[in-house]
Amino acid sequence: MTIESQLRDRVAASVDQGFAAQIAFTQDMIRFASVRGAEHAVQDFVFRALRERNYAMDRFEMDRGAIERHPGGAVFSEDHSAAPIVVGIHRPRNETGRSLILQAHVDVVPPGPAGMWSHPPFDPVIEGDWLYGRGGADMKAGHAANIFAIDALRRIGLQPAATVYVQSVVEEESTGNGALMTHLRGYKADAALIPEPEDEMLVRANVGVLWFEVEVRGLPVHVREMGAGANAIDAAYRIMGELRRLEAEWNERKAGRAHFETEAHPINLNIGKIEGGDWASSVPAWCKLSCRIAIYPGVSAKEASREIADRIAAFARSDNFLANNPPSVEFNGFFAEGYVLEPGSDAEAVLARAHQDATGQPLKSFMTAGYLDARVYALYDKIPTLCYGPYSQNIHGFDERVSIASLKRITTAMALFVAEWCGTEPSET
Amino acid sequence: MTIESQLRDRVAASVDQGFAAQIAFTQDMIRFASVRGAEHAVQDFVFRALRERNYAMDRFEMDRGAIERHPGGAVFSEDHSAAPIVVGIHRPRNETGRSLILQAHVDVVPPGPAGMWSHPPFDPVIEGDWLYGRGGADMKAGHAANIFAIDALRRIGLQPAATVYVQSVVEEESTGNGALMTHLRGYKADAALIPEPEDEMLVRANVGVLWFEVEVRGLPVHVREMGAGANAIDAAYRIMGELRRLEAEWNERKAGRAHFETEAHPINLNIGKIEGGDWASSVPAWCKLSCRIAIYPGVSAKEASREIADRIAAFARSDNFLANNPPSVEFNGFFAEGYVLEPGSDAEAVLARAHQDATGQPLKSFMTAGYLDARVYALYDKIPTLCYGPYSQNIHGFDERVSIASLKRITTAMALFVAEWCGTEPSET
Repeated sequence: MTIESQLRDRVAASVDQGFAAQIAFTQDMIRFASVRGAEHAVQDFVFRALRERNYAMDRFEMDRGAIERHPGGAVFSEDHSAAPIVVGIHRPRNETGRSLILQAHVDVVPPGPAGMWSHPPFDPVIEGDWLYGRGGADMKAGHAANIFAIDALRRIGLQPAATVYVQSVVEEESTGNGALMTHLRGYKADAALIPEPEDEMLVRANVGVLWFEVEVRGLPVHVREMGAGANAIDAAYRIMGELRRLEAEWNERKAGRAHFETEAHPINLNIGKIEGGDWASSVPAWCKLSCRIAIYPGVSAKEASREIADRIAAFARSDNFLANNPPSVEFNGFFAEGYVLEPGSDAEAVLARAHQDATGQPLKSFMTAGYLDARVYALYDKIPTLCYGPYSQNIHGFDERVSIASLKRITTAMALFVAEWCGTEPSET
Repeated sequence: MTIESQLRDRVAASVDQGFAAQIAFTQDMIRFASVRGAEHAVQDFVFRALRERNYAMDRFEMDRGAIERHPGGAVFSEDHSAAPIVVGIHRPRNETGRSLILQAHVDVVPPGPAGMWSHPPFDPVIEGDWLYGRGGADMKAGHAANIFAIDALRRIGLQPAATVYVQSVVEEESTGNGALMTHLRGYKADAALIPEPEDEMLVRANVGVLWFEVEVRGLPVHVREMGAGANAIDAAYRIMGELRRLEAEWNERKAGRAHFETEAHPINLNIGKIEGGDWASSVPAWCKLSCRIAIYPGVSAKEASREIADRIAAFARSDNFLANNPPSVEFNGFFAEGYVLEPGSDAEAVLARAHQDATGQPLKSFMTAGYLDARVYALYDKIPTLCYGPYSQNIHGFDERVSIASLKRITTAMALFVAEWCGTEPSET
């Protein structure tokens, strides 16, 4: 038996030994209904968990001015979270290895109507291999894995021989400002790993994401005279049609783009929320659309946002009602560009070995069409950023769930990755 | 000078004498932001105003069971008003004339975004001939006119020689249950007059109105997988398309219907409110439409509601997404049938004379395409019901306003109508 295979077996056994506690910890995290703005309590829970493990602790607020001045920062809407960012810092006795950021977010998307869940959304029920719960897969399972992967090394007398930052952020589901704030605070390392639920694959390329709100306002009248009045709901639907045409054009622009041109539909526009009108019997005077669209890596958020605003303005000029009632367009969340993890980095090679050792399978990579905080580390720290995590189903949907067996495999892979990337030294405890 | 023309001049002078107080009273009423459910305070104001004038007072709650059992009653949603109904009763010394119901409602439709008003919506500003304010035209001006028309007679030593019920109701803008409750309470008279803002014309025919809510629910997914998921907002839009086709068919059915076949578009469907989805980045799992549609007089609310529900169900079966996620349809407000005021009644003849005397113009009649409480008195009391009131602009819209000169004319006409319809006797005070 080689030294490497001995380490592999010891790490796997250690992860197994700690796994019941890891699942219980993940369940504790899921019980916090940490939707946007309500992440205070779970961040305090994470803070205590890291402090108990003797990490040096840093806890800080968002710097609104610095974020809004940054080209990848999103404007602060009134819904923006005021919860703190938490960083636990491991410093080795001898800094001999390569430093690492292990990042995860605690904010979760809204559960939607509770009646559509098999179990209450924040009740972390286990059925067979599945752990249910809003935010369990995305990404409290990965968050706990960050902590328990290091714990698994400690349990066998080892600790990373390089600085490791365990970052717990908010705003990942709406602006990405939490991750950006860790960058603005000055944190940087030789690589970053974010265990998002990626079905045991590595994210090779990732779209950017923009959020925007379109609001139509127009003169309402008594419904008995509705021919004479404006109807903001119908006008909003006409704008939706134009946005769908824009989406189709952006999808056509996949031609020639590595990682994208073989995808059927790499650019998704989501009209995620609509609100309009006050009353069944009044012709609606207003309607708001909350939208999310993707952009290719290399496309600037600023240019893309200008194209959207110009497109809506031009459409409005061609529309009888909208010409007199120009809609407003506001970029009120994600203003994030995409990234590509260029093949060939040492970090990827180390993860590929760790993955092979933990799962017996080669590491696959893929393009993913949703926002990832990885863009901050990839674009602004310019370091290899590995987005890699467990199998899941229905993230952002009802009955969101994460595979428990997969979670154990990726925790093992993560611990092996840390051991090789950072190197190890005897642990202090 | 004839006795009639002497009376006419004395009444007109008396209305003029009381008119400053009438406008001030109307302004006081407008200051109450009496949207649905918030009519308690203004009903107490009306109660005190009638009691001070020595009306016998009756104040009562809605009888939910009796209303919901009545074929013209609307179901009670959670938004239903709990404000009382107020009736002031004038009884003459000698009941020699014909009795009369003078009715008005105090509920107003929501003001919508305040920024779209020139003045705050509940600030009763006067500019030139216009009195502004939400609910001023519809119908606090008419409400005050009911009271001040009788006051004008008293000021010249006269009072009606028949019973007059001054009814102040709620729920006219959403269910019509307030008017229905006065019927269920047992009130009845030889005619009814409701001074809604009808541009100094008499309503000859009036549609019925149904309210319904359509809700779509479906499986949401992460936007990165949106092709696989359902989109409740888009599905709701497809249902809107089907409802527009139904509306077009119902308009075609105007053929052969007196009072309707010459109207360009007698049946209006209004999609007045839409709400769907929780989050820009989640594929929307639900969407609700609040709708209002008209029906011709003679069409039963029950049959029409069944046609709507069947139509939506059939459409859903033909739609890939909706077939698996059948939308719900709930009739949650108006369940009201239309009426026709058959020409030739004495009441109409008396009003025509009063109108000619007050305005110098012949009384015109017309079809109106919005709900009127008049249907309760016309359909269930089976009495001549005169819907007739002042010029207005933008009722249910921004900058709703009523013509002050018109209000004085119709108050005079109303006082003359009461004097002839009920006859007069010397007043008691």
